[in-house]
Amino acid sequence: MVKAGKEINVAILGATGRVGQELIKILEQRNFPVKEFRPLASARSKDTTVTFNGKPYVVQEPSEQAFAGIDLVLASAGAEISEHLAPLAVKQGACVIDNSNAFRMDPNVPLVVPEVNGEALHSHKGIVANPNCTTAQLVAALKPIHDAAGLTRVIVSSYQSVSGAGKEAMDELEAQTRALMNGGDYPPQVFQRQIAFNLIPHIDKFLPNGYTKEEMKVVQETQKILGLPNLPVTCTAVRVPILISHSEAVLVELERPLSPQQAREALASSPIVEVWDDPEKGIYPTPIEAAGEDPVYVGRIRHDTSSSNGLHMWVVADNLRIGAALNAVRIAEYMLEHDLLKTPVSA
Amino acid sequence: MVKAGKEINVAILGATGRVGQELIKILEQRNFPVKEFRPLASARSKDTTVTFNGKPYVVQEPSEQAFAGIDLVLASAGAEISEHLAPLAVKQGACVIDNSNAFRMDPNVPLVVPEVNGEALHSHKGIVANPNCTTAQLVAALKPIHDAAGLTRVIVSSYQSVSGAGKEAMDELEAQTRALMNGGDYPPQVFQRQIAFNLIPHIDKFLPNGYTKEEMKVVQETQKILGLPNLPVTCTAVRVPILISHSEAVLVELERPLSPQQAREALASSPIVEVWDDPEKGIYPTPIEAAGEDPVYVGRIRHDTSSSNGLHMWVVADNLRIGAALNAVRIAEYMLEHDLLKTPVSA
Repeated sequence: MVKAGKEINVAILGATGRVGQELIKILEQRNFPVKEFRPLASARSKDTTVTFNGKPYVVQEPSEQAFAGIDLVLASAGAEISEHLAPLAVKQGACVIDNSNAFRMDPNVPLVVPEVNGEALHSHKGIVANPNCTTAQLVAALKPIHDAAGLTRVIVSSYQSVSGAGKEAMDELEAQTRALMNGGDYPPQVFQRQIAFNLIPHIDKFLPNGYTKEEMKVVQETQKILGLPNLPVTCTAVRVPILISHSEAVLVELERPLSPQQAREALASSPIVEVWDDPEKGIYPTPIEAAGEDPVYVGRIRHDTSSSNGLHMWVVADNLRIGAALNAVRIAEYMLEHDLLKTPVSA
Repeated sequence: MVKAGKEINVAILGATGRVGQELIKILEQRNFPVKEFRPLASARSKDTTVTFNGKPYVVQEPSEQAFAGIDLVLASAGAEISEHLAPLAVKQGACVIDNSNAFRMDPNVPLVVPEVNGEALHSHKGIVANPNCTTAQLVAALKPIHDAAGLTRVIVSSYQSVSGAGKEAMDELEAQTRALMNGGDYPPQVFQRQIAFNLIPHIDKFLPNGYTKEEMKVVQETQKILGLPNLPVTCTAVRVPILISHSEAVLVELERPLSPQQAREALASSPIVEVWDDPEKGIYPTPIEAAGEDPVYVGRIRHDTSSSNGLHMWVVADNLRIGAALNAVRIAEYMLEHDLLKTPVSA
């Protein structure tokens, strides 16, 4: 059992990946109290080393035994691997904070942005899910508005960077852009279409209802995190040719009137939101300004011209941080602080 | 007075500009019946030549006299120049089809997409306005849906290419992209921020209500063209780092239920819309596919998960064509066909 203040043994599952690397960086930056550090990755990465706090660590292949003695697993190796390994880690007494889609909608698994619904962590059964990147920044902006005036509907159009699709996707955007600018050609490999100087309204697979899985994740995860299972939410998710940061044009409808200024004040009270909203001075967030930063930035707040209690917001955040690694580490910090980093007896 | 079938004298105001050049190309492609061709442009372009149907023409400086004998002026030289010169051209007996913002909301000036509200042309008083590019493709998709099930609300998030901001904006995106890819720097000149690998939620000036002029153009012009002055419409307009074609995530609410399949059939009946909508086969429009093409492409049609009679659409079109030059020439064709190319006596 781990007590707050104690150092703990941490395994990173998927340590060589893009989010795994970001996890390591954030653990370092935030001085997370790591006693033993154990990087795990697939056979492909076996015997490579990763650096943590200036020291090299040999990457091990994950197995049930690899979790022995570990208190916390930060998992970012995809849904299939998490489905298989997370229960084994829990059996070994570890808590797992999972970045994949494997457990997010499982009613026994809390889906958490700590500043929004940290209380859900108190009933965890060993596994905690980290939301989809698009959802994480969205709920950060929605929660203060909901508390101030009651959400009755949420409409989202997303502008998502290629880093959401991984390192190869970033490489493809760069290489394809370079090829096209030099009069050459670069057929798509990661994406369904050319992404350089183009948009792709297709993220993850299509579902029978005509939505993509990405779009339905935003709908369902938002409802779950806000604890509003019947909140009407809808989304169009679009990939845009930028490297880092997701942006969202969000229209909310509210129970009670809320002025843009009241909304700004409500948002500013969140520890993870920064309001950048003074259009006359050219102040509003853009993706390059959010990249590498921790906050969820909100701007362009204004009354909806098409409803009585509607408000528009423009929500921008670094999808690799708030949307993945940073939120996972914040979950771990919350659990440590509230003495929740232990697998309950019932698990 | 010009009779249908007759050849007419045509002046292009702003002949050396980006839309002016596109106008000339489209007049050629569509075999528009031009008798005399007269390119006009500011003193800066005076004495340069432009080519029409393989023949060079010296560009003249515009003045009241420059319109003598002209039946039709296709104007694309900005609002200030149109405000000054269009009335002079009308005084000389010409009709003016104006691409600028100068007259769009003037109650005496029809604002027209011919396939949507061509009938408005029958009451023109010499000047006809071409809508904003974002609006033109939007109303092309909205009209068939309205006829089928009655619009009650329209919510638009736009993804607008840099060509909407002119030739210099396209050059800036290309030069800035090249500089950044080579580790260099390229401070913004045309745009408010870096546009390469970035998004800018700021098109045209900000208004006191927190919207940009571009966003309010979409609201007001859509209401005017559809003849629904009280239709609730709202918009967030965002510049994206692509060269040509505007895309729009459009959510419509309807009086009567309309299935996605019924919406596809209604849209397919429009002469200027093409439905590309078979997600399972990866069929949906993207900007590079629409660039250089005439239709307004619509895909991603699906029920709204947040309202009972709502439908989503993804609307993509070449902003230089349907949004400017092509629509202007189609207005001229309609006027020619209906014998409307004459300045009414009352003017």
